Amino acid sequence: MQDFNQRSLELHEKYHGKLEIKSKFPLESQDDLSTAYTPGVAEISRVIGQDKSLVKKYTIKKNMVAIVSDGSAILGLGNLGPEAALPVMEGKAILFKEFANVDAFPICLDTQDAEEIIKTVKYLAPVFGGINLEDISAPRCFEIENRLAGLINALQLKNTNKEEMKVVMNGAGAAGVAVTKLLLKYGFKNIIICDSKGIIFKDRENLTPVKQELTQITNLENKQGGLAEAMAGADIFIGVSVADLVTEEMVKSMNERPVIFAMANPNPEIMPDKAKNAGVFIIATGRSDFPNQVNNVLAFPGIFRGALDNNVSQITDEMKISAAEALAGYVTDLNVDKILPSPLDKGVASVIAEVIR
Amino acid sequence: MQDFNQRSLELHEKYHGKLEIKSKFPLESQDDLSTAYTPGVAEISRVIGQDKSLVKKYTIKKNMVAIVSDGSAILGLGNLGPEAALPVMEGKAILFKEFANVDAFPICLDTQDAEEIIKTVKYLAPVFGGINLEDISAPRCFEIENRLAGLINALQLKNTNKEEMKVVMNGAGAAGVAVTKLLLKYGFKNIIICDSKGIIFKDRENLTPVKQELTQITNLENKQGGLAEAMAGADIFIGVSVADLVTEEMVKSMNERPVIFAMANPNPEIMPDKAKNAGVFIIATGRSDFPNQVNNVLAFPGIFRGALDNNVSQITDEMKISAAEALAGYVTDLNVDKILPSPLDKGVASVIAEVIR
Repeated sequence: MQDFNQRSLELHEKYHGKLEIKSKFPLESQDDLSTAYTPGVAEISRVIGQDKSLVKKYTIKKNMVAIVSDGSAILGLGNLGPEAALPVMEGKAILFKEFANVDAFPICLDTQDAEEIIKTVKYLAPVFGGINLEDISAPRCFEIENRLAGLINALQLKNTNKEEMKVVMNGAGAAGVAVTKLLLKYGFKNIIICDSKGIIFKDRENLTPVKQELTQITNLENKQGGLAEAMAGADIFIGVSVADLVTEEMVKSMNERPVIFAMANPNPEIMPDKAKNAGVFIIATGRSDFPNQVNNVLAFPGIFRGALDNNVSQITDEMKISAAEALAGYVTDLNVDKILPSPLDKGVASVIAEVIR
Repeated sequence: MQDFNQRSLELHEKYHGKLEIKSKFPLESQDDLSTAYTPGVAEISRVIGQDKSLVKKYTIKKNMVAIVSDGSAILGLGNLGPEAALPVMEGKAILFKEFANVDAFPICLDTQDAEEIIKTVKYLAPVFGGINLEDISAPRCFEIENRLAGLINALQLKNTNKEEMKVVMNGAGAAGVAVTKLLLKYGFKNIIICDSKGIIFKDRENLTPVKQELTQITNLENKQGGLAEAMAGADIFIGVSVADLVTEEMVKSMNERPVIFAMANPNPEIMPDKAKNAGVFIIATGRSDFPNQVNNVLAFPGIFRGALDNNVSQITDEMKISAAEALAGYVTDLNVDKILPSPLDKGVASVIAEVIR
């Protein structure tokens, strides 16, 4: 980890960030100038002025996504502000380009007022064919598909059905809620959600409205207790919480062939080697130095590639499920250390793009 | 012109606009991913979160300019809206890169409310090291330096002093006012401004406050009449108006060795061949198919290159005059058909950048 930090600081300083603007037009001759700029460009403005829909035919809007963040929820680091969000959004931008040939530009906003963010995004709309709201204190939608894809393949290796699985979701923030709802929609029946105070159950004191709603759709047996009680007898643990919450004892208390998705980043709820010691069947994390890396680069480039190509204006839950199934099906050499494709696999994006329509 | 229009439509459709996003980082290996994206990027966010000034060290902000337009005043085409502005702003962006290695991104806003534009630009500030307000109904600041540079060289060829020159400025919009004020600051004394109703003079009826102010600093003899009256005996005509207003007779009525800057674009106030017929000494236009093209690509890339490099937060009139003098001095083979460098000359930007400090 130390090595990545040092190399990252060095490269970011050397290049001053990660992306640059390049011309797709030749700019060598006077004719080139007259075509790309005045007077030739006036004709493009004129025709778009007459018919705004032509903006997608003649400009970057066709292939350009805004990656919008207010810096309120940067990775696992919290609310560090828009400047600190910029390197992460630049990173997403270059992955968009590299993996799906989507042009994307980071828009890090110096406001955390939701109304102002919405208004600003509307003002920016003429330039962008898609908007990726990211690391705002709200569901990071496109981290969900790859988790579901991993689960689909884990179930296949366990040779069992989703309906029978006891799932523990640790973390009831925006991410935990969004993943839970998608799992229910996909067909999981038995999910228990924990927050920092333990299992969320009916009549627990001081529940927020969101958590009250969760008691209606999860924890059907109205189990009570802490994380340890939740995990005893569970088949699947999904952590969207913080580092080192899960002990070896908890893993041992799970049902046979337990599956763990420890998504806290960069330090997971339990390290893979520790989980293996405790007899885990499959463990996935966000880390690149262990097998089964759940990396959102598997999902977002292909989803926006498909949305731009197929003029999809909103990504529905059905599309997310289709994307997860496509991603899961893409793995040919499926085994407990390979439930997802490599984040470097450049064939992934087009397989996902295909089902976003 | 027809040819440029056709070629322009073809190329813009083929490439879907003119710019693309490229990675400056390698993205081939797992280590590359871990450096550019998670987990390595978290370290960059962390250090910027602690000290926001480091955003220029580690991100694109160091070299990134926003080209902001609301589409209210696109080239000579008028208020066609932000979509129609996009191809022009893209053109500026690729010229920024090509001529001064400045990364620039088009921000075409779907609002023409000045307060909203200002607020939006403030919200966008974390990403950008410079803001270029363009083709908004306001002075297009960076078209001024190249005109002044051309004038400086025209005076040198006439072998005369600016103080003695009678100047007619045709056009009292934002551009005309801005150029007039800079010329006065530079040392011109005798300027007459015309609008569509003729010469602007004291006590003319229904003058706007801006035009009333102009009567205090121009037209010292309080001359009255139309454009023809203004031009009789003048040394220099500068048009920031519309096509074909200047007749051969008007040119013939000017003082000896008259100088004409016909800036209406793409069709100037008088075509160069017609002006030559009427005995003009020097004529400059915005057109690439005649000598003496006054193209703003001569100025804006170098000005922003200098501003970014030297941490200049505002471009002062003194800097604009220095830039004009540097641009004028850069022409070595000065003659009546060569008062400005070629817009393709990639040495110009660094000469201008040098004096922006």
